[in-house]
Amino acid sequence: MDKTTKIEEIVEDEAAKLEAEADSDATVMMPALDAAEKPADKTGAINAAVINPKADLAALDALEYELFALRYAMGELTSFAEVIDPDGATDDRGEAVGYLMEKSTNALCAPEIGALLDRLEANPAILNATQAAQVKILKRDRAQLLDVPVEEQVALAKLQNESAGVWRKAKLSNDWASFEPYLDKAVEAQIRIAGYKNPGKDPYDVWLDEFEHDTDRAFYDAFFAEVKETVVPLLADVVAAGQPTEAVEGTFGEARQWALAKELLELEGLDKDRLWVGPTEHPFTGGSSRNFVIVTGHVYEDQVLSNVYSILHEGGHALYEQNVDEKLNRTSLAGGTSSGMHEAQSRFFENYVGRSKAFARPLLALMKNHFPGPLSRITPNQLYIAANRAEPGLIRTEADELTYPLHIIVRYEIEQLLFSGEAKASDVPGLWRDKYKSYLGVNVPDYTRGPLQDVHWSEGLFGYFPTYALGSAYGAQLKHHMIADGVDFDGACAAGNLEPIRSWLTRNIWRYGRSKDPAELIQGACGEPFSAHYFCDYLRDKFSAIYRLK
Amino acid sequence: MDKTTKIEEIVEDEAAKLEAEADSDATVMMPALDAAEKPADKTGAINAAVINPKADLAALDALEYELFALRYAMGELTSFAEVIDPDGATDDRGEAVGYLMEKSTNALCAPEIGALLDRLEANPAILNATQAAQVKILKRDRAQLLDVPVEEQVALAKLQNESAGVWRKAKLSNDWASFEPYLDKAVEAQIRIAGYKNPGKDPYDVWLDEFEHDTDRAFYDAFFAEVKETVVPLLADVVAAGQPTEAVEGTFGEARQWALAKELLELEGLDKDRLWVGPTEHPFTGGSSRNFVIVTGHVYEDQVLSNVYSILHEGGHALYEQNVDEKLNRTSLAGGTSSGMHEAQSRFFENYVGRSKAFARPLLALMKNHFPGPLSRITPNQLYIAANRAEPGLIRTEADELTYPLHIIVRYEIEQLLFSGEAKASDVPGLWRDKYKSYLGVNVPDYTRGPLQDVHWSEGLFGYFPTYALGSAYGAQLKHHMIADGVDFDGACAAGNLEPIRSWLTRNIWRYGRSKDPAELIQGACGEPFSAHYFCDYLRDKFSAIYRLK
Repeated sequence: MDKTTKIEEIVEDEAAKLEAEADSDATVMMPALDAAEKPADKTGAINAAVINPKADLAALDALEYELFALRYAMGELTSFAEVIDPDGATDDRGEAVGYLMEKSTNALCAPEIGALLDRLEANPAILNATQAAQVKILKRDRAQLLDVPVEEQVALAKLQNESAGVWRKAKLSNDWASFEPYLDKAVEAQIRIAGYKNPGKDPYDVWLDEFEHDTDRAFYDAFFAEVKETVVPLLADVVAAGQPTEAVEGTFGEARQWALAKELLELEGLDKDRLWVGPTEHPFTGGSSRNFVIVTGHVYEDQVLSNVYSILHEGGHALYEQNVDEKLNRTSLAGGTSSGMHEAQSRFFENYVGRSKAFARPLLALMKNHFPGPLSRITPNQLYIAANRAEPGLIRTEADELTYPLHIIVRYEIEQLLFSGEAKASDVPGLWRDKYKSYLGVNVPDYTRGPLQDVHWSEGLFGYFPTYALGSAYGAQLKHHMIADGVDFDGACAAGNLEPIRSWLTRNIWRYGRSKDPAELIQGACGEPFSAHYFCDYLRDKFSAIYRLK
Repeated sequence: MDKTTKIEEIVEDEAAKLEAEADSDATVMMPALDAAEKPADKTGAINAAVINPKADLAALDALEYELFALRYAMGELTSFAEVIDPDGATDDRGEAVGYLMEKSTNALCAPEIGALLDRLEANPAILNATQAAQVKILKRDRAQLLDVPVEEQVALAKLQNESAGVWRKAKLSNDWASFEPYLDKAVEAQIRIAGYKNPGKDPYDVWLDEFEHDTDRAFYDAFFAEVKETVVPLLADVVAAGQPTEAVEGTFGEARQWALAKELLELEGLDKDRLWVGPTEHPFTGGSSRNFVIVTGHVYEDQVLSNVYSILHEGGHALYEQNVDEKLNRTSLAGGTSSGMHEAQSRFFENYVGRSKAFARPLLALMKNHFPGPLSRITPNQLYIAANRAEPGLIRTEADELTYPLHIIVRYEIEQLLFSGEAKASDVPGLWRDKYKSYLGVNVPDYTRGPLQDVHWSEGLFGYFPTYALGSAYGAQLKHHMIADGVDFDGACAAGNLEPIRSWLTRNIWRYGRSKDPAELIQGACGEPFSAHYFCDYLRDKFSAIYRLK
C-alpha cells in the first residue's frame, strides 16, 4: 500500500475541523431531538436545512456499516457458491442471499435515508471529501434502485429469466429465430427503463452512462472511429505478413500450473494474506472486501499460456480491489469505480505488462521452474512472439489484443441501430455478417459463432460491451503517463519487480475506489481527458514490430 | 431420507385444519388491524387473547425466515473461516458476523416478538405440532438472550476474553497460578448468571439443564455412579491383563487418506450433494443448513486410524444434521436438539458401528484399496483389536472408549465442588491428582496435562463436559432398542450397508431436529427413560472379550 495517500490526509483534516464545528457552532444547527421528531419529507427539500451534523453523520456511518456487513456476507455466499458449495445448497443459499439483498435494498431505500442524504448533500460544509463522495455514490446507488417502478423491474426480471433460457438453447442449436423476438423485447424494455432513469436523454446514452459514468455515444463514436481507422488496415497488413512459427506447446500438469499461478499472483504483487485462489469452470475475481479477494482460474493441460494470461488478468482486477484505500473499506466507496476502469487494470497486467517484451524474461524463468522439459528450448523472445499472435477470428472471448476492439465495435454499432430503431433483431444476423467481413475479414458461418455467442443481450445488457475496449485504451494512456512520470516501466517488467508500476497505479487510481469517477481518475492521473491515440499508437508500434511491417 | 416421517403428516393435517378455521371461524378472532394497532404488552398477558391466527402465523413464518437466512449466512461465514478464508479477512469477517448476530438477536428479542410468542403459546388450538414446537424453542432461545442483564453479559464476555488469553499462556508454560484466579472468577460469574436464568434453582443444575434439557445433578449422579462402579474395576482388570500386540502401522499418504475419508463418508451414508469435506487443524462439523454440511479432518501420515475414526465421528454429526426433516429446515427446529444427542450420533458411528467387530471387515477392505502395502498382512480381527486398545491416560481428547467417561467424571465432580463452594480453584490441582489416581490409576505430572488441558473452563463453560459421556450412553441404549426393533445391526455393519441403522435413527431421532428434547427422544425411541446400564453392559461385554477377562 502507498503510504502517502491524499485521501487519508483529507479525512483527518476535515474530521478535526468537523469536530470543532460540531462542538462550538451551535447557532447553525437544530438540536438532535428536533431533527429526529420531524417526519422526513420525501423530497428532502424541507429537511435539507434541518441538520444535526453529529446525528446525521452518525446515521451515515450506521448506514455504511450495515451495507458493508451485508455486502461482505453476500460476497462470501456468492463467490464461494461457484467454487465450493455443494449443489444441494443452491436453494437454501439462494434464499439467504435474497434476504440479504432485500435487507440491503431496504436499508438504502428507506425514506429517512433519502432525507438524510438530501440533508447532507445540501450542507456540504459539514462533509469532508470522503463523506461528500459517500453521499454522492449512495444517492446514485439509491436512484438505481428507486428510479424504475417495481412492476417494470419485475417484468424485466421475468423477461431476462425467459430470455436467458431461450438463448442457452438457441446457442446450442444455432437457432436465431427462437431468440430473435426476445432481443426485440429486451431492447424495448431497456429503452422504456432508460426513460424512467433519465426521461429527456437518449436511451442508449443512458445505458452507456450507467456502466461508465460520463460516457455517451459522442464519446464512444470518437474513440471507436480512431480505433477502426488504425486497426482495420493494421490487421490487413498483419494478415498479409503471415503468421510467425513460434509456439509454446506440450503437456502442462494441473498441480504444477496451479503452483505457477500462485507464484504469478505473488509476482504481480497480490497480498496473499488477503487472497484466496482456486479452480472454477470460468475464471473470475470476486470476494467480500479488500481483505478477502478471490481469484479463480481454469487449467487446460495442453495450453499453459491460457491459464498464465487468465491469471495475470484476474490478478489485475484483484490488485485494484486489494489496494483501494483502507479507510474506504467499510464504505460504499470500496471496490473499483467502473467496469471500464476495472478492465483497464486487468488488461494492464495481462497485456501491457504480461505480453510485453521485457516481461517475457522473468515470466519464462518462472514457467521454466515448473516445466523445464517442454520449455527447455524456448527463448524469451519466442515466448513474446507466441503470446502476441494476432489473427482475425469469430469469437470475442478468444480474440487477441489487436482484434479484440473490432469485436466490440461490431456490437456497439449494432446496439446503436437497435436503440435508434434503425434495425430490428431480424436485421442483426445480416449486420453481424457484413461487419465481421468488413472489419475482420472473416465469414460468419452460423449464428452460434455469430450474434448468439455472448450472454449479454440475453440478460438485457446493452451498452456494456464498449467498456471492455475502453479499459484497454485507458491502460495505454495510463502506461504513457506512468512512464512520463518517471516510472521505468520496461525496467520493472524486465526485473520482474512491478512495485514501481503498482505504486503509481495505487497513487493515481486504485486507492480512490469509487470516490472518483473514471473521467476524474484519468484527468487526475494523466493531466488530460481520455484520449484514444495512446491505444492506437501502442497497437501500431507493437504489431508493426512483431510482424515486421514496412 | 426416511419416507414415512410422522412430522410431515402432522404438519399437513394441521395446516389443512388451520386453513379451514382461519377462513370460517371469525368470531373468536380480532381483525388484523386491531391486533397490529394495539401496542404490545411486555408480559404478553393482555394480548394473549387478542389473536389473529393468519396474521400471527404469518409473523411467525416471517421471523423464522429471517432467522434462517441470518443463520445460513453466519454458518457460511464462520464454517469457512477456519477452512479457507485468508488471515487478512479476519477483522472484516468479524464485523460482518457481528452485524448478522446482532440482527438475529434483535429479530428474536423485539418486544412485539415476545408478545407474538406469548399469544401463540396461549392459543395452542391454532398451532399444529410443528408450530407448537417452534414457539417453545423460540421462547427458549429468546429467554437465553434476554434473561441475563446486558451489563452482566458484557462483563462476562470481557472476563472470558481475558481468561482465554491467560489460559493459553498458562497451558504452554505449565503455570496454574496465573489461571487460578480466573477460574474462581468464572465460577462466580456463572453462579450469578444462573441466578438470573432461574433464581430459585441450584446454579450448577441450571447449567446442566442449559446444555442438556431436563438433566440435573441427581440425573448425572445416578448415571456416573453406575459408570464408575463398572468402569473403574473393569479398567483395573484390563490393565492387569496386559496390552495386545495388534497395531496398524506404516506411512499413509495424505491424498490417499482424503480419498479414503470421502469413501468412508459415502459408506456412512452422507449425501455428498449436500456435503463439503476438507482439511483443518482441528476436525469439526459445521455448515449452514441440512443442505450444506461441512466435515473437516486432519491427516497424520503415520496414523491412519486417527483420521478414519475422526471422520466416522464427524460423519455421525453430519448425518444428524443432513437428516433433520426437510420441513424443519428453514425453522428454528433445524439442527440437532442438544450437545448430548449430537454426541450420541457421532459416537454411534465412531464406536458402536466403527469400532465393532462386524464393521472391521468392510472398513479394512476400503482401507486396503488405498493402502495395500502397509495393510497387506492385517486381518479384520487384528484391526478390531488395534482400534479398541484401552489404556489409562492423562489427556481426555486422546482417551479410548473405556476410559473416556472417567475423564468426564473427574471434571463433573470438580465442577460440582466449585459450584457448591466446597472447593476453590486453588484446590483443583490436588483434586485432579487424587481423582486421576483413584479412577484411572495414573499420576498427573504437571498442570498442562492436568487441569489446564481443556479450553472449556477458560471460556466459562461448566456443566458441558457431562454431555460428552451422556452421548456415549445414549448411543448404547439406542443400539439396544434398534436391535430389539428388528434391525440386524451386526449384519448391516458386516455388509458395510448401514441403511437399516440410518433408517431407524432417522425415524426415531434425526428427523425431529429440535422439535423434541433429548429425554423425549429417548423415551420415544426406546419406550423408556434414559438408563445407564446399556452403556455399562456394552463396555463390560466388549472389553472383557477383547482382553479375555475371567
